[in-house]
Amino acid sequence: MDSYRLGRHISHQFDNELENIRNRVLVMGGMVEELLQMAVVPLLDSNESPEKLVPRDEKINQLEVEIDEFCSQILARRQPTARDLRLVIAVGKAISDLERIGDEAKMIARKSDESKVKESRPYYHQLRVLVQRVQGMLNQALDAFARMDAETAVEVARQDESIDDSYGELLRSLINDMEDSPKKVRRSVELMWVTRSLERIGDHAANICEHVVYVVKGKDVRHLSIDEMEDEVNKY
Amino acid sequence: MDSYRLGRHISHQFDNELENIRNRVLVMGGMVEELLQMAVVPLLDSNESPEKLVPRDEKINQLEVEIDEFCSQILARRQPTARDLRLVIAVGKAISDLERIGDEAKMIARKSDESKVKESRPYYHQLRVLVQRVQGMLNQALDAFARMDAETAVEVARQDESIDDSYGELLRSLINDMEDSPKKVRRSVELMWVTRSLERIGDHAANICEHVVYVVKGKDVRHLSIDEMEDEVNKY
Repeated sequence: MDSYRLGRHISHQFDNELENIRNRVLVMGGMVEELLQMAVVPLLDSNESPEKLVPRDEKINQLEVEIDEFCSQILARRQPTARDLRLVIAVGKAISDLERIGDEAKMIARKSDESKVKESRPYYHQLRVLVQRVQGMLNQALDAFARMDAETAVEVARQDESIDDSYGELLRSLINDMEDSPKKVRRSVELMWVTRSLERIGDHAANICEHVVYVVKGKDVRHLSIDEMEDEVNKY
Repeated sequence: MDSYRLGRHISHQFDNELENIRNRVLVMGGMVEELLQMAVVPLLDSNESPEKLVPRDEKINQLEVEIDEFCSQILARRQPTARDLRLVIAVGKAISDLERIGDEAKMIARKSDESKVKESRPYYHQLRVLVQRVQGMLNQALDAFARMDAETAVEVARQDESIDDSYGELLRSLINDMEDSPKKVRRSVELMWVTRSLERIGDHAANICEHVVYVVKGKDVRHLSIDEMEDEVNKY
């Protein structure tokens, strides 16, 4: 495991700053995970009503702006190079992915609050599988980021395939149902958007994994396949 | 108009580098616009078959990686501050938006190549309006970026509202048709994804406008309303 070593700088202040931005990213990640959890509750259990998500979403947006501003300050004052510079750049990208995950969660919340989607009972099982995969992947991606562990990051990125499988399967069910009964069209369309948002969250979690590899290995793996990404991680 | 002034640095080399990354962003933007144009052709004219998009998409991804790498080099070697630093940061964000626009265009191309969508004739008019609005907005956003013109950027960002209107209208037509006839379900679902991708491209074009305001005004306006954004631009 290639974990991030601390205390390498003459300036302890600088070490503290780098540690600080990483911690803030993890705080933001935790908030995004909570938002997602709150958003999916009414989808998986029709007895629950969705809680208020707006203040939480605003806090996430605010954290994104704060962390970005802090990154700019570090770039201007500390002029980091090599791995430190890559960390600051990766943080900027990771928080953008987290913010987009927050947006998708908000969209899921809005859709799962609409009565049509509350009739999602026939899809409970498929939805639950997809939600669990997405939540699991996001959690592990944040963990790989916390530990700056490139090997784990590649394994986590690979999970996107099983999310795509669940996504495709659920979409096919929804389309079949719409063809069976016009009455199911509106409900199914809402669930299609929810399903799509979940799949997009998986993509953003995979991006976070790519940012980890970039920091640790110095290699931009964004447009490589998972196998090529794994080769890059094992290369050095 | 607050255009970007050149020749402010003792090092002409540095000026050239900053000019160089801006130009590369515009080259990338031009390629993304072309990709989008190629993607929508089969949608708006059923006699046309889609051209090969893959090589173009790969070139766009490659440009994103190259520009990002060049930005890192500038950060490490030149240690820019103030507006120069903001320009480098904004370029990093803008190319990420351009890459995502490229992805949406690719998705549109894939969908519009499927025979179901070729039967999109009843929606020609609505689709054409939406496509024209999206293409117009993207083009003007890139122009505002080229000239680093914050006032224009705000005006362009405001166009996202009319795109959302066209998007909502088209969605309602598609859902009504699916309810009318089960035979139309598959075709309409494909067109829903296309419509959604076009709407997302509008969002990314709006992001590019926000990056322009950030460079020129030093203010992060990402989570503000358009009116608040305009206030920020007029403040100084």
